[in-house]
Amino acid sequence: MSRPAQSPAGVAPEIREYRESDWPEVLPILEEAFRAGDTYAFSPHSTAEEIHRVWIEAPARTFVAREPDGPVQGTYFIKANQPGLGAHVCNCGYVTAQRAQGRGIAARMCEHSQEQAVALGFRAMQFNFVVATNTRAIRLWERLGFSVVGRLPGAFNHQTLGYVDALVMFKTLVEGNR
Amino acid sequence: MSRPAQSPAGVAPEIREYRESDWPEVLPILEEAFRAGDTYAFSPHSTAEEIHRVWIEAPARTFVAREPDGPVQGTYFIKANQPGLGAHVCNCGYVTAQRAQGRGIAARMCEHSQEQAVALGFRAMQFNFVVATNTRAIRLWERLGFSVVGRLPGAFNHQTLGYVDALVMFKTLVEGNR
Repeated sequence: MSRPAQSPAGVAPEIREYRESDWPEVLPILEEAFRAGDTYAFSPHSTAEEIHRVWIEAPARTFVAREPDGPVQGTYFIKANQPGLGAHVCNCGYVTAQRAQGRGIAARMCEHSQEQAVALGFRAMQFNFVVATNTRAIRLWERLGFSVVGRLPGAFNHQTLGYVDALVMFKTLVEGNR
Repeated sequence: MSRPAQSPAGVAPEIREYRESDWPEVLPILEEAFRAGDTYAFSPHSTAEEIHRVWIEAPARTFVAREPDGPVQGTYFIKANQPGLGAHVCNCGYVTAQRAQGRGIAARMCEHSQEQAVALGFRAMQFNFVVATNTRAIRLWERLGFSVVGRLPGAFNHQTLGYVDALVMFKTLVEGNR
């Protein structure tokens, strides 16, 4: 009863592939996240063109999460993490709108991305740069089956804390050597 | 006395910035390395254009190593490993010509790259994808001050061994939080 009726917990957001008509809703969500400078390496001063390039053009696919007939609440991309002989491992990035935090949208996007990854032929998923102070994200990824497989000392220039570590997280999606 | 006179041990190679006129010598060295499919993720079937893009165009700087008045023996690039808030950590890739192996050229290039990194304002150097079976390289990087900070299970599709682990290696070059 403590949640507003227009955003009930437990209503699963719809996730579908990004369309260019989503851009006016997606851009401010990404700008808000990058400007904070506490989770993503993308410059807090990234231009719209730069954000479009890294989030929409460079990845293999981009998705948006929204409640049925509601506004966009989150977005994620999926792409190969390395070329050629490393291209069976994918990389994803997820951003949830500040106003939609705490409703399980990041978890739902991550689960969706794992299904997409397997459908696209990827065998594993790697996060290259999880900011060590972002404990909420780390706990969530661990709950969804990811392990911390590396720690990069001082690799993230946190906009309020200075240089902090970044973690490498990994989840095998398809077992077997061939 | 057991080494041929034309490649004496102890003659330090000259390292200088890449020029486009080096390309006819650099390309076959890189093709040879990538074709083996045992050290770099770049596809064994990479085209000359793809190799030029990743080794020459994308990096901040590319260098070549050669003995004075001799042929190119190795090449390396340096670039930021992440955008914006991770751009104080650089990434390098090194390739030594097969015919020039065992003469300390990779070590000399790595030392040179660390000097360049500091001169360019980088604070640390990260190797994202050191193939775990490439023990010669791992021992060399450790001797030059790098530590293994991560292990990516099955992340490299080795062309003779199948899926093998890749390591993340890291060296702090400049201490201090600001």
